[in-house]
Amino acid sequence: MKRQSFYSHDFENWEGRYRGTFFNSLAGFKSCNLIGTQNSAGQTNLAIFFSVIHVGANPPYLGLLFRPHSVPRHTLENIRENGCFTVNAVAEGMEGLAHHTSAKFQGSEFSALGIALEYKDDFPAPFVKSSSVQIACKVEEEHLIKANQTIFVVGAIQAVHLPKGYITSDGLIEHDKLNTLAVNALNSYYSTELVRRFEYAQPHQELKEKK
Amino acid sequence: MKRQSFYSHDFENWEGRYRGTFFNSLAGFKSCNLIGTQNSAGQTNLAIFFSVIHVGANPPYLGLLFRPHSVPRHTLENIRENGCFTVNAVAEGMEGLAHHTSAKFQGSEFSALGIALEYKDDFPAPFVKSSSVQIACKVEEEHLIKANQTIFVVGAIQAVHLPKGYITSDGLIEHDKLNTLAVNALNSYYSTELVRRFEYAQPHQELKEKK
Repeated sequence: MKRQSFYSHDFENWEGRYRGTFFNSLAGFKSCNLIGTQNSAGQTNLAIFFSVIHVGANPPYLGLLFRPHSVPRHTLENIRENGCFTVNAVAEGMEGLAHHTSAKFQGSEFSALGIALEYKDDFPAPFVKSSSVQIACKVEEEHLIKANQTIFVVGAIQAVHLPKGYITSDGLIEHDKLNTLAVNALNSYYSTELVRRFEYAQPHQELKEKK
Repeated sequence: MKRQSFYSHDFENWEGRYRGTFFNSLAGFKSCNLIGTQNSAGQTNLAIFFSVIHVGANPPYLGLLFRPHSVPRHTLENIRENGCFTVNAVAEGMEGLAHHTSAKFQGSEFSALGIALEYKDDFPAPFVKSSSVQIACKVEEEHLIKANQTIFVVGAIQAVHLPKGYITSDGLIEHDKLNTLAVNALNSYYSTELVRRFEYAQPHQELKEKK
């Protein structure tokens, strides 16, 4: 294949938004979640995040990255104020409203965009009512990335709410059947189709597909 | 929709592999990359990672999470030894070999699995020759997640190599056209199809689709 190569001196000379899109799309597809929070006065906030990753299963943790000088400032402030947030999956059909939460609204994105919220089990952060997978998290720790002042937050998973019938016998949440979207860069939303599932890999043995 | 809810006392009672699959699939689709490294003696290593995320664009950084007591131990040791690693996109057709790198091989996964490597620009870590997008990174910083001893590593992007003709005029790397895979849990690989691209969102204005 005919390749092209780019180096630091190229990156520096690119126009800012081009560079942003290029590096936001560099490492492949990302998860698509709405983070729900509220401050101590009960003012809610909703923001789209593509950086949620798995951190651990026992006990369960997830992590996500915040850019303090960028859009989702309210989310981080609320998380610091009450220590709680929700993670809500974005499915096909929700991408317009979900994407719109990235705009700089003054008040709550729930009311500005007409997104219905709900509360569960007295957890002090709002869930997105129409999201399939809803996760309640408490902040566990916060790490400042010194290189660029972004902040990696680790949340301890308290509860998971999801529709019945979408967990396989071995524990997989079937995001393809729930029409959960995958994302490229900051604005491009994709549906998915299963290619293959494998069994646990062993060295020097042929891989087995999972049926 | 009829929902089910799970709480900490449920998580604790699940069988370990079921719990692992559940939480690895919880937050949605993930990126799929092979991390290439070598130690100071030139012994190479290749391991599949689903945790690579965007950390910054100017200058460009990415981050990924390591489980020190699990499979990809050689990768972290090599990164600590020579400070360099490569990130290589996994496309449809490569998923078998890529998945197999998660097995506990004694020597190099490149030779054990017959995966061709290549070097570029005297960068001291191997690239996967057949990968479309190849990224050269130097370690910038390392953060210990106290909750479970996982390690978040931030890499400074030195160079990007990719096939000609797959960057849109606004900077998007077209991973769908490169057939880059998305992943659910630790073993399920998906192709993607574009649903929608949006313009930058403004509050109280209708969203515009990007053409």
